[in-house]
Amino acid sequence: MKSRLQKVSIIGLGLIGASIAAGLKQRGLAERIIAYDTNAESLETGISQAFIDEKADSVAACVQGSSLVVLAVPVLSIRDSLSQLKDVLLEKNRSGQAPVVTDVGSVKSTILKAANEIFGEHPANLVPGHPVAGSEKHGVEAADPDLFEKHKVILTPTAATDKDALALVEEMWQGLGARVMQMTAEHHDRVFAQTSHLPHLLAYALVDTLSVQGDSLEIFEYAAGGFRDFSRIAASDPVMWRDVFDANGEEVLNILDKYVDELSGIRSMIAEGRMDELEALFKRAKIARDHFSLIRENKGKRK
Amino acid sequence: MKSRLQKVSIIGLGLIGASIAAGLKQRGLAERIIAYDTNAESLETGISQAFIDEKADSVAACVQGSSLVVLAVPVLSIRDSLSQLKDVLLEKNRSGQAPVVTDVGSVKSTILKAANEIFGEHPANLVPGHPVAGSEKHGVEAADPDLFEKHKVILTPTAATDKDALALVEEMWQGLGARVMQMTAEHHDRVFAQTSHLPHLLAYALVDTLSVQGDSLEIFEYAAGGFRDFSRIAASDPVMWRDVFDANGEEVLNILDKYVDELSGIRSMIAEGRMDELEALFKRAKIARDHFSLIRENKGKRK
Repeated sequence: MKSRLQKVSIIGLGLIGASIAAGLKQRGLAERIIAYDTNAESLETGISQAFIDEKADSVAACVQGSSLVVLAVPVLSIRDSLSQLKDVLLEKNRSGQAPVVTDVGSVKSTILKAANEIFGEHPANLVPGHPVAGSEKHGVEAADPDLFEKHKVILTPTAATDKDALALVEEMWQGLGARVMQMTAEHHDRVFAQTSHLPHLLAYALVDTLSVQGDSLEIFEYAAGGFRDFSRIAASDPVMWRDVFDANGEEVLNILDKYVDELSGIRSMIAEGRMDELEALFKRAKIARDHFSLIRENKGKRK
Repeated sequence: MKSRLQKVSIIGLGLIGASIAAGLKQRGLAERIIAYDTNAESLETGISQAFIDEKADSVAACVQGSSLVVLAVPVLSIRDSLSQLKDVLLEKNRSGQAPVVTDVGSVKSTILKAANEIFGEHPANLVPGHPVAGSEKHGVEAADPDLFEKHKVILTPTAATDKDALALVEEMWQGLGARVMQMTAEHHDRVFAQTSHLPHLLAYALVDTLSVQGDSLEIFEYAAGGFRDFSRIAASDPVMWRDVFDANGEEVLNILDKYVDELSGIRSMIAEGRMDELEALFKRAKIARDHFSLIRENKGKRK
């Protein structure tokens, strides 16, 4: 793999971008890493911590001569980044030396849509990706070379995606210790609306609802286990999450409506004293949860 | 304190009852501990593990000659237990040797209501209590003598509660390492509807909603951090939680309605693209969460 990754360009040196850089460095998987970020301090930190070899003044300068470009910017900045890459990519395409481009956004239809609008098609060397990793921490200071170790990375290639480009991105993630999977962008966005975006929305809504109830200090004071788990995820980055809901609004609203229907059914059970039905629902949920936890654990053991 | 707790009776030898017994034993805080449970195996385990000295065949037999009776049964069984205690308590009241009675239910208006109906008033020697501790584990096998260490215990005495009875229950919990607080039953039930009961309801509802979506195995497979936290609390005991919602339905519906209103507002923001408002809401929630987490941490450090 080393021979193929002569030069890696990282656009956006936040938690994910910096962790990729640090991981590649630590494992000796890239000959040279150059980064661009709108925040000059982040780039300085990257150099002083030796995650990156070089900093660039612009996106265009950053990707010159690269074999792989990683767009590690927030979901809604991907369009801008692609626009800025346009000339370089087209020129390189003509000379047959286009770098492979991938991203790390948690909504995948966005990048396909942006690419189609900017390039008029899905470029063969664009491989959309989503590392299912992260934490409440953010920024270059939180960089962790092992962040992706044993985590899933989902790639969403299209029929137009070049096989070699796909293989290169796959190799990069496997080199960082991740388990790489593939699905369509549409399917990805539906599954993550359900398993990640909706839970975050519910957590933000709960903390916001409770923080205006009477003596909210007291409410947080007595917060038992249940609430603590919820409120932890409400500490996530508000801007990043706003972008996710902007980009994946349709799928989120679809599952949110089903969830509100379920709450409405539960409300009736409690109001009408149909407690046997409520118990049956709780049991069904517990069985589903225990069943899938067991499968997860067994899978974990096999590896 | 030792001199006051000659004989402690535990009605219900589940996780909480057995942990109280084990904690009192380990610290030498009770001369003799006798327990009653409908499950004979639980009593055998209690004796073989030496949490208890003796088992009883009935509630009435269990409380004979006790200085303190702990009702550690599910919320909706408290009424039954009180009924079975009635004759003994009245007889003892006449002879001036009534034991102090406390409970561990997570809804506090229930026991007051039951007592008023059974005794025609709130008995002076009845001290309702709620240890804010527990885990997904349950049963005597999960007994932990340190379960209450540094945890809150909330007592909800009324104007009729005897001061000495209150002091005795307070001493027992302090002896087990808990921090004892007081509030009214109404206030307790409102605060816990918000911080504990609603989050559990939302978690059960989420797991149930997702488990019927398309390929639910895949949904649990890709479950990211957010969902994992939710689903953990959906592993709690369905019967115990059904009872909680039965007993505290009014307060739960009150806060559930406010929560659904909040979700409805968020739905509009996403559907109408008012993303600045959504970001402002996320920020407000994050600030509230971070603020109260900090207060909690600082309090933790002082102790």
